[in-house]
Amino acid sequence: MPFRLGKHTVVLDNPPSIKAYSAIVGKKEGEGPLGRYFDSIFDDSTLGQSSWEKAESMMQNDSVNKTLEKAQLSNSEIQYIFGGDLLNQCISSAYGLRRFDIPFFGLYGACSTMAESLCLASIFIESEAAKNCVCITSSHFCSAERQFRFPLEYGGQRTPTSQWTATAAGSVVVSSGSKAPFIRSFTTGTIEDMGIKDISNMGAAMAPAAAKTILRFFEDTGNKPSDFDMILTGDLGKVGSELLVDLLKRANLDISKQHSDCGLLLFDLDNQNVNAGGSGCGCSAAVLCSYILSGIEKGDLKDILFIATGALMSTVSVQQGESIPAIAHLLHISNHI
Amino acid sequence: MPFRLGKHTVVLDNPPSIKAYSAIVGKKEGEGPLGRYFDSIFDDSTLGQSSWEKAESMMQNDSVNKTLEKAQLSNSEIQYIFGGDLLNQCISSAYGLRRFDIPFFGLYGACSTMAESLCLASIFIESEAAKNCVCITSSHFCSAERQFRFPLEYGGQRTPTSQWTATAAGSVVVSSGSKAPFIRSFTTGTIEDMGIKDISNMGAAMAPAAAKTILRFFEDTGNKPSDFDMILTGDLGKVGSELLVDLLKRANLDISKQHSDCGLLLFDLDNQNVNAGGSGCGCSAAVLCSYILSGIEKGDLKDILFIATGALMSTVSVQQGESIPAIAHLLHISNHI
Repeated sequence: MPFRLGKHTVVLDNPPSIKAYSAIVGKKEGEGPLGRYFDSIFDDSTLGQSSWEKAESMMQNDSVNKTLEKAQLSNSEIQYIFGGDLLNQCISSAYGLRRFDIPFFGLYGACSTMAESLCLASIFIESEAAKNCVCITSSHFCSAERQFRFPLEYGGQRTPTSQWTATAAGSVVVSSGSKAPFIRSFTTGTIEDMGIKDISNMGAAMAPAAAKTILRFFEDTGNKPSDFDMILTGDLGKVGSELLVDLLKRANLDISKQHSDCGLLLFDLDNQNVNAGGSGCGCSAAVLCSYILSGIEKGDLKDILFIATGALMSTVSVQQGESIPAIAHLLHISNHI
Repeated sequence: MPFRLGKHTVVLDNPPSIKAYSAIVGKKEGEGPLGRYFDSIFDDSTLGQSSWEKAESMMQNDSVNKTLEKAQLSNSEIQYIFGGDLLNQCISSAYGLRRFDIPFFGLYGACSTMAESLCLASIFIESEAAKNCVCITSSHFCSAERQFRFPLEYGGQRTPTSQWTATAAGSVVVSSGSKAPFIRSFTTGTIEDMGIKDISNMGAAMAPAAAKTILRFFEDTGNKPSDFDMILTGDLGKVGSELLVDLLKRANLDISKQHSDCGLLLFDLDNQNVNAGGSGCGCSAAVLCSYILSGIEKGDLKDILFIATGALMSTVSVQQGESIPAIAHLLHISNHI
């Protein structure tokens, strides 16, 4: 049974196992430093579909199929899918997952979705409400860009603090079982809003949310940063990562030695023209579901904290002068029980 | 501990209790048949805010405050909020709930959100991962109309099959405890798409999803419709309700005596000019969190099935020629254990 530790952390007594995982990415992501870790890389950003939105749905469909194949499970052996994405009304998930006939819990956590889905699936597995759950999320540069920013044809110039939405999908099967990686505990984030209004600087809007969740985890568990091989944030990018490390130093927590960020791992910032780094639900999902989980499986990584961060604004809220609320959910993932 | 019954139903062995609930509605909803059951009715559709989106956020904020007050619980005694809404990127929830400092799981299930949140909260309570959870959703006629259909100023004519998005928010506190109403079991829906493309006929798009979930529940549990005082769908309205009863009759399940629909209960269809009835996340939430839960509390209703239905399309998917995928989640709510 799960139990609560401190005020905000849930410990999974019989830790759920990540039975299989896959990541599917676009050409640019495949050319980045993690290229060789992905299950497939597609050259055509439409995946042969008539729109980028349909292409993104196809990525979710393909990633779930690939993960089920690796888990050697059929659709009927999966009790729930937990999924979501960045598009209005989460259409990538609704359309991408409609053919599976698997009970579906739709989520919206912006770029925190991968972590959110893992928290929820863990409780379903641990409580035996399910034997196998799929967690899935995605993002697509072209569908996100035209929804949140400008039509691609406009060729708008990007600011140095802006991040590049990854074209990627990542999914896992979470199960009861004795095979690493294991989900050991999680700390669910609160909505934080520090008044930041610059939508070209999401890292700055999300860093305080990440800092708060991380502080709460260490307070609840009594752990130290050195207990972990890696403290991996979702996609704060360069600006947000520096802010996070600085915010935590001021709170007497030094994570500078362990900190990494999916947005900085996915791309080569010097040569791939992504400004402050990668972002999008698919960024942290694809980095986790390739390089990181395989590292844990091999034992190269023993204990990591995965903290996916999301910015919860819309174009309407921004146009109405609102600031950017953000959230960050943390999971402790490990190669041992 | 929860256990699975049949292929798709989870039974809550130690049923979570709905400790408190509230519903807040607009003027038109307050003038409907259920007017006297609501906690508050506001005359001004802006709630004094500078936009309808901000007004909708305010409704979520007010409803959670009211429910916490009725439950005699402070923010710090709530471990999680499960919430979502219809607006792009679920901004009603993100902005409406940002001041509570309560860990937040953001959901997108369109008008099925209330049922989705209750399923998730139930598992968190039953597994002791939480002691108290809030479930919340909302919709606002003016914010939904301009996002999904036309600017209100345009004065577009509405088709007879169209439904009226309710201006309403409903929330509950789900807890471990021995006070009715209790959540006894749930059946999570799958994404169903029968190829319907008419966005002025959501009832028809959602009826097959409701039929499938209801059939699965009866198959799993061996119950009969007569075991329930009411089989209450979310907001199928007049068209969708007739379709549902008919679809189930063809599958040899007659729910015509027990069936009711939140979209038909909320408004007076003959006199309130809402065409096929009410809809929106707030419709089923407000009907459940007033008339229905108070009826269960008083013992007028002993066992009900609540099946909230959602249509998962967006304006973009519709413009790209896609059909409308739908989903329906079912809960058995009861006044006894």
